[in-house]
Parts: sequence; structure tokens; C-alpha cells
Amino acid sequence: MAKEVILLDFWPSMYGMRTRIALREKGVDFEYRDENLREKSPLLLQMNPVHKKIPVLIHNGKPVCESAIQVQYIDEVWPHKNPILPSDPYQRAQARFWVDFIDKKLCLGDQMYEAQRKVYATKGEEQETGKKEFIEILKTLESELGDKPYFGGDDFGYVDIGLIGFYTWFPGYEKFGNFSIEAECPKLIAWAKRCMQRESVAKSLPDPEKVVEFMAMLRKKFGVE
Amino acid sequence: MAKEVILLDFWPSMYGMRTRIALREKGVDFEYRDENLREKSPLLLQMNPVHKKIPVLIHNGKPVCESAIQVQYIDEVWPHKNPILPSDPYQRAQARFWVDFIDKKLCLGDQMYEAQRKVYATKGEEQETGKKEFIEILKTLESELGDKPYFGGDDFGYVDIGLIGFYTWFPGYEKFGNFSIEAECPKLIAWAKRCMQRESVAKSLPDPEKVVEFMAMLRKKFGVE
Repeated sequence: MAKEVILLDFWPSMYGMRTRIALREKGVDFEYRDENLREKSPLLLQMNPVHKKIPVLIHNGKPVCESAIQVQYIDEVWPHKNPILPSDPYQRAQARFWVDFIDKKLCLGDQMYEAQRKVYATKGEEQETGKKEFIEILKTLESELGDKPYFGGDDFGYVDIGLIGFYTWFPGYEKFGNFSIEAECPKLIAWAKRCMQRESVAKSLPDPEKVVEFMAMLRKKFGVE
Repeated sequence: MAKEVILLDFWPSMYGMRTRIALREKGVDFEYRDENLREKSPLLLQMNPVHKKIPVLIHNGKPVCESAIQVQYIDEVWPHKNPILPSDPYQRAQARFWVDFIDKKLCLGDQMYEAQRKVYATKGEEQETGKKEFIEILKTLESELGDKPYFGGDDFGYVDIGLIGFYTWFPGYEKFGNFSIEAECPKLIAWAKRCMQRESVAKSLPDPEKVVEFMAMLRKKFGVE
């Protein structure tokens, strides 16, 4: 019998990582299915007919799409362990604002702004512009973090889950972009290392070396090498 | 003394309309301030330093940005009258999915996909492509609506608020795009007329004739005329 919760995902996806982390924060047992995005499974096409994208969270046979929405859903369905969103409406709105900021500024989607693709998959002036934009986005996030241990304060939560998946891509950005993110954003890197100490995060993020290989493949595909 | 709730907005904004409607659904008294987007007020820049965009909802001196987040905030702060989001977590996730779909597909932002701008502010082949894409998006929404009176079922709610503001732009799309939306999507137009019977909606949407004039100005700005 299939498990109650199935996650259709793709291992380097920072969006999929959000949902993996949220499920693990709640201690929800789930079946992970890695999709081949060049030949999407009939289940993926059936469960996300509108966007045809991973991640898709299937709970009792019913799909929930879009990672930020999945994380909120998980928090609402399993509210008792490790709350993800703050309980105060104003703090909730602020947390949603920052996850929306990450989605708008760092989204990998084909129709949106993607400073970080320029960082690792272009050359020359375009790459320099991309690096500048990317660092500016990270500095905005670092400034929001301030001296707090996590974005929401003392507890790991929604914005941390929204952002931490990008950290596995940092070594690749640094290698192919020939720059140091830690030199620019030391507090953000300290925050990421703090997050990595959580089992839910460590278990959900792939080995950065594997991501570097994946990015090298994408560079070839984009014709950079 | 300033009111407890202030809305920084711009009258033709379908995003601002969402927040106006939500506040009126809840019976919240608010001060409306129309911004000059070519010369943004110091208050707007102070309250939304990240995006510098309207609408901004200011509640007791503190800002909430992004219309979809504002509507959820309003629903959480004033929960007792006219619930906006469904109470069931799965239905909430579905409602969030469709508002996110509207944001991704119909957003007017400069960095995103904007089929509808092509409809009224381009010519020839680009305009024809835009019309085809725009109608496809509306048909997807119409299919989700199905035979229900509102997107969430029997009650006016989150997705209705998310979409209805676009309706004031329809006469302009039709005039400048030289096509009929009603002929393509009769159920969606019937839904829009149903929404317009609500006082919260009727009070929050501008006269479509004024929007047509505004769009004519934009066409000049975009160099179409």
C-alpha cells in the first residue's frame, strides 16, 4: 500500500528541499520519489496538470502544489510539533513576505528573474552583473536576519525553511562565479551552518559536490562550456 | 489623528483592489491614500523599502506588503466577520494555489510574464500571441470555477478577491485587443457579474471607462500609438 504522504521531487531542487525539511520537522513519514524532469511521470502530470512541476506533495491521494504552500499546509495539518509559521498574524505576514521575496528574487523558473543563473551559467559582463545582483539580494536577506539566530528569532521557522536549500548551491556559485559568498555575507553563512545542525535540514539537503556536478552539466546545456 | 488602518494604493491597481475588498468585507474603516507612482511618497518608500510598490497596508503604524499577504493578514486579524480563506487546510492550500497562479500568470510586474500587457499594448503577431495566452489563462481559471457560484464554492472568498480586480481591465483589453472575453469565457463573466453585486467589490473597483483611459495613456507610453 502506498504511504499516506508521497513527495514527487527532484534532488537538487531548493523548492523540494523546503517540503522535505517541513515534513521532517513534523516527523511525518513520507515516500520520496525522484522525478526525471526530461520524462515526467504520469503521476506528476496528473497531480500538477497546471504547472507540471515538482515538488508535488500528495497527501491521502490529493495533491498540494507550490513549495511555499506545501510548507504552510504541512504546518496546518500537523500543528503540534515544531510550529513553522509564527502564531502572531503580523509576524506571519512578515514571514510570508520574506519567503515571497526569496521566490521573486531567487526563483529558478524560466519566466522570472534569476540573478543566480547568471552567476554560474554566463560569462563576462553578464556574469559580473549577476554576481552583483545576487550579492545584493543576499545582503538584503542578511540585513533582515540581523543578529538573530534564525529569521523568525530564536526558533527555526518558515523563512529559514524557505531559504536554506539555496545554501547547497553556494559552493557551485562560488566555483563558477569565482567569488566568495562568505566574504560578502558572513552572518548569512553562520546562519546557514546553524541550520545545517538540525537533523531535518542535514537529511534534506544533498551533498554540495553533487550539486556542483549538476551545475557543471547545466553550464554545458546553456552553452557556457 | 491618523486612522488605525491606512492603505497606500493606486486606483487602477488590481492588487490594491484585493486589499480594499478584504477590508470592506471585514467592515474595517480605513484611510485610502492614492499614490503618485512617478513621485512616490516618503511614507511609501519608508513602509516598503524592499519593493517600493503599492499596495501597502499600514496597521497601527506597521506595514504589511504584497496584496495576497495583506488579504491573509486581514482575515487573520479580523476573523469573525465574512471569513475569506476556507477553514479546511486542504481547501486553504487550493485557494492559495489559485491566487499564486493568478499572480504568476497575470502579474503586471516588470520582471514577470504578462500576457495581458501584450493584449492592449502591442500590435500584430505579438498581440495575437498575447490574446491567445491570455484567453488560455482565463479558460484555466474558468475551468477551476466550473459550475460553482464562487471559486471556493457557495461563498465569496480568497480566490474571488484575488481575481475580480482584473475584471475592471477587461473592457480595455477587449477594446484595444479587438476581441470578446465573454464570448470565450461566459461562465467567468457571469461569475464576475455575481461578484460585482457585493458592496465590498462594487465600492472597490473603479469605473472601467476610467481604466480604458488609463490604458490608452499606457499605450502611448509604450509607444503603441
